[in-house]
Amino acid sequence: MAEETKPAVPPSDNAAADAEAGPSKKAAKKAEAKAKKEALKAQRAAERIAVASTSNEPEEDPAKDFYGPATPALLKSFSADAEDVTLRSISESHIGNKVVIRAWLQNTRMQGAKMAFVELREEGNWAIQGIVAATGDVKEGDSTPVISKRMVKWAGAVNPESFVTVEATVEKPFAPVKSCRVSDFELHISKIFVISAAPATLGMTLAAANRAVTNFSDEEVKPEEGAQEKEAEGGPPAASMLTHLDNIVMHKRSPVQQAIADIRVEVKHLFRDYLRERGFKEFEPPCLIGAASEGGAGVFAMPYFNQKAYLAQSPQFYKQFEIAGGRKRVFSIGPVFRAENSNTPRHMTEFTGLDLEMEIRKDYHEVLSVLEGVLLHIFRGIEKNCAAEIEVVRSVYPSPEILLPEPGKELRLTFAEAQKLLREEGPEEFRNVRDDEDMSTPQEKALGALIREKYKTDFFAVDKFPESARPFYAKVDPASDPKEPVTNAFDMFLRGQEILSGGERIADPDELEARIRYKGVDPTSAGIKEYIGVFREAGVPPHGGGGIGLDRVVAWYLALPSVHLAAYYPRTPKRLLP
Amino acid sequence: MAEETKPAVPPSDNAAADAEAGPSKKAAKKAEAKAKKEALKAQRAAERIAVASTSNEPEEDPAKDFYGPATPALLKSFSADAEDVTLRSISESHIGNKVVIRAWLQNTRMQGAKMAFVELREEGNWAIQGIVAATGDVKEGDSTPVISKRMVKWAGAVNPESFVTVEATVEKPFAPVKSCRVSDFELHISKIFVISAAPATLGMTLAAANRAVTNFSDEEVKPEEGAQEKEAEGGPPAASMLTHLDNIVMHKRSPVQQAIADIRVEVKHLFRDYLRERGFKEFEPPCLIGAASEGGAGVFAMPYFNQKAYLAQSPQFYKQFEIAGGRKRVFSIGPVFRAENSNTPRHMTEFTGLDLEMEIRKDYHEVLSVLEGVLLHIFRGIEKNCAAEIEVVRSVYPSPEILLPEPGKELRLTFAEAQKLLREEGPEEFRNVRDDEDMSTPQEKALGALIREKYKTDFFAVDKFPESARPFYAKVDPASDPKEPVTNAFDMFLRGQEILSGGERIADPDELEARIRYKGVDPTSAGIKEYIGVFREAGVPPHGGGGIGLDRVVAWYLALPSVHLAAYYPRTPKRLLP
Repeated sequence: MAEETKPAVPPSDNAAADAEAGPSKKAAKKAEAKAKKEALKAQRAAERIAVASTSNEPEEDPAKDFYGPATPALLKSFSADAEDVTLRSISESHIGNKVVIRAWLQNTRMQGAKMAFVELREEGNWAIQGIVAATGDVKEGDSTPVISKRMVKWAGAVNPESFVTVEATVEKPFAPVKSCRVSDFELHISKIFVISAAPATLGMTLAAANRAVTNFSDEEVKPEEGAQEKEAEGGPPAASMLTHLDNIVMHKRSPVQQAIADIRVEVKHLFRDYLRERGFKEFEPPCLIGAASEGGAGVFAMPYFNQKAYLAQSPQFYKQFEIAGGRKRVFSIGPVFRAENSNTPRHMTEFTGLDLEMEIRKDYHEVLSVLEGVLLHIFRGIEKNCAAEIEVVRSVYPSPEILLPEPGKELRLTFAEAQKLLREEGPEEFRNVRDDEDMSTPQEKALGALIREKYKTDFFAVDKFPESARPFYAKVDPASDPKEPVTNAFDMFLRGQEILSGGERIADPDELEARIRYKGVDPTSAGIKEYIGVFREAGVPPHGGGGIGLDRVVAWYLALPSVHLAAYYPRTPKRLLP
Repeated sequence: MAEETKPAVPPSDNAAADAEAGPSKKAAKKAEAKAKKEALKAQRAAERIAVASTSNEPEEDPAKDFYGPATPALLKSFSADAEDVTLRSISESHIGNKVVIRAWLQNTRMQGAKMAFVELREEGNWAIQGIVAATGDVKEGDSTPVISKRMVKWAGAVNPESFVTVEATVEKPFAPVKSCRVSDFELHISKIFVISAAPATLGMTLAAANRAVTNFSDEEVKPEEGAQEKEAEGGPPAASMLTHLDNIVMHKRSPVQQAIADIRVEVKHLFRDYLRERGFKEFEPPCLIGAASEGGAGVFAMPYFNQKAYLAQSPQFYKQFEIAGGRKRVFSIGPVFRAENSNTPRHMTEFTGLDLEMEIRKDYHEVLSVLEGVLLHIFRGIEKNCAAEIEVVRSVYPSPEILLPEPGKELRLTFAEAQKLLREEGPEEFRNVRDDEDMSTPQEKALGALIREKYKTDFFAVDKFPESARPFYAKVDPASDPKEPVTNAFDMFLRGQEILSGGERIADPDELEARIRYKGVDPTSAGIKEYIGVFREAGVPPHGGGGIGLDRVVAWYLALPSVHLAAYYPRTPKRLLP
């Protein structure tokens, strides 16, 4: 048999037995240990509990069945005419009606001894103001539910971020409510039960969780510089990324993270929808592979029965196998892995790739067009479908409006043109960049700034990368100068940062084998041999594709300071939990 | 500079230089080595090439620019009025018109010396018959393209599974074409170029690839029993799963595998669509985790910088973290990993999980209803949207019609009821099955057969599994007998095989910790401590969910003999390639 739950709620007459007992103390202790720097908040919460505890009125509370920790009996005590609704669904038609709500209680505020304001929130920062107001003395024969001062006091002392259920009447407020997302309704609460209690002290408050993260250090947390001043300015101190990840629940509940997650979901949906409509079929490349075929340095290896397995660094080979295997156009959405010991806000060891591959009918620019198309569909789609979420993110992480090209006026430069622009109009340090060497990250950023200025766009493609800058499967442009060969391969950039690599692949096995040798790789080595073998099995059409970093698209579109903020559970060389 | 491609095509006058050279020989050699058992096929192909080669007419071929290996110049030689189309898009409106097609040439057949039939195929087994027929002598001033006997001979000798492009006129055939999917059109070919040549001998022919796999042994391939008899019956011998995986291109090109892949895509789409419409939000759980928290035996471990990483066996913990983190309803589609050394057609080391988790408002049967709903939506959806694909699969892997319950009449049994049914009406060996012990696979199959017979359904749920049969996060039914406790957890079955596990989870950290101890797990151990900690961070609503095995849903719905046939790149203890 399972133990009965004992939620940690503020004491009330009908919860007296729980007041002393384990869970609330334990939880408080754990949370306290975690949250030294939020002492002030803790103190406030403790004071509230103290107020509630000392109210030791002996007579029976007429409202005793209308509040307290939830029990199966109490949960069945809601009025038969109360409609079970979500906060988001409340509309004009509910005014004057009784409803039952389940939500997080995000904040409470007492107004004198007779009224408590409780803010109720559900997914997506949808918050509404609730009011618990003491009624007058009970009159004989009056069936209106009584709300006692003790009930008001109790409700005002529920720990923030507890999960509660309330019965309430929907009313129009006297004036629009400023503190909540929903400003035109309020809930006049007649019953309130705590289903799952938060500890008295949170490891990170919702307000702190909703401040911009600036410290992405993987080291032990030091108090943030200027934290006290910020506190003095009125807000809670900003927390480091480490504190956020150590308090993953509050991190995820923050409006800014909910908004980022919603935008991420929409990006995936837009990607999929656009491609499905154009005849692309989804498939799932494997994560476990038998050889570190795309370069051994950055690959995770593990024992696998009597052999070794590796984690895929990209679905590249498998996308191509799908084309060889009879598909015209495929895409995949899935995890890819890099074992690079890079501890920066730009790197993760696991991230999500949006990949596609397609048959080329006449020219590889067909691929470039599809990729431009899908990215612009994503950017315009979130601009339209996620305007509110973008607003929420901007309120925490300000960013300039993104500049996108008019349809049909997408900007494509060749690598040589991009380098020329940098040499001629870029910063001093880039006066000598070469056409046969890959771009560095600072170069990319400078190029992005130049192009934003000159062409009024934050999104563009750089085509015809030099042969030396691309992997062995990239098709060399047969029309290019053999002394300075370029490839039919490109990158795409957003706000001066790379978000996509793509191009035409070599479909002919002999050409592929020659290229692999030229790049200094042994064509008979494990993985490579099988890769070439696929193209020898049967005739494979010309094809190309590209890979988009989902985390990067979300992070750079929103101009976040780190991709870690765009991921659900960022994995770094030092972090695998939670 | 890349080398010029030298496709391995049958010799023609304008490809004479290629006839001797490397690639075709190399490819043929490689393929020959692979395909000993298909000697007959090889011999036929060799004969065809011999016929083509000996035609050594000295005079210039008037059709010389209308066939041969594709070159950039030839690819530009198509008539300006020829429309570039896919096979699938050809309709009545094209009759009499010139079109350009790119497709796999899947078969050729000569009719005398003046006519060759070539079957052209694109994705999804969409095949159409093409005809290359020699025209009469050229008349002065006649602009009709000439088709010479040499061109006919050449076209009839192109290696099957080469990728070709043709210019042709769409015509109505005299009688419906029986050998191709498209029976009401044929292509009168005026130009044919090979873009990418298949070897003279394939490692596995398309016909062989489309026969039912019966040998799933991981051992070295032995000639299948009865292979010769089957050959005598007219078809090619069936190949083992090993041969299929060693010839992944032909495996994937087979109509049956294309159909299975199409059905798999549709299952994912239906899952996603149904849940999105009901307010579920997608998220991505990590694959890399810091502790083997769901049982250490079946987990892959690997060195990870200065620590150890593990591959997630399910997204269980992370689905729950999403609920704790403020989501009402979430789902995920992604890879999960099991390091079990099980070499059976039911097991893989990497497979795809369809998972969901949701807040429970009143009762965990809300979760059960959503899961029943999404599965029935999938089953009815593929029945409707993939009727043709199911037909293709049934033609290779016959299966009885699937029986589904009428809407609103879904079958739910308790575990105790299911065991009683087995005891009372099942086979002799199950007369003593107990209510407090988990079901075995043979028990499940017997139960499925009984229920199909008795209730006329192949899909049902078994609820209230005994406590001993479920993991520590399963919520024990507080109303159950403490001496024989059961859980608020269930499985769902399709054709007598489990495809889903789900139920209510424990949301209270103290109850969870007690349960973990009771199950003999140390609540302070790595991973478990952090898991419990999440529920201590703040109040978490009651919640539940379930996990569906995508590979199993596809395999058991289609009654395939192995999940390996439902996966794109099946991973087994002995197989990581391709």
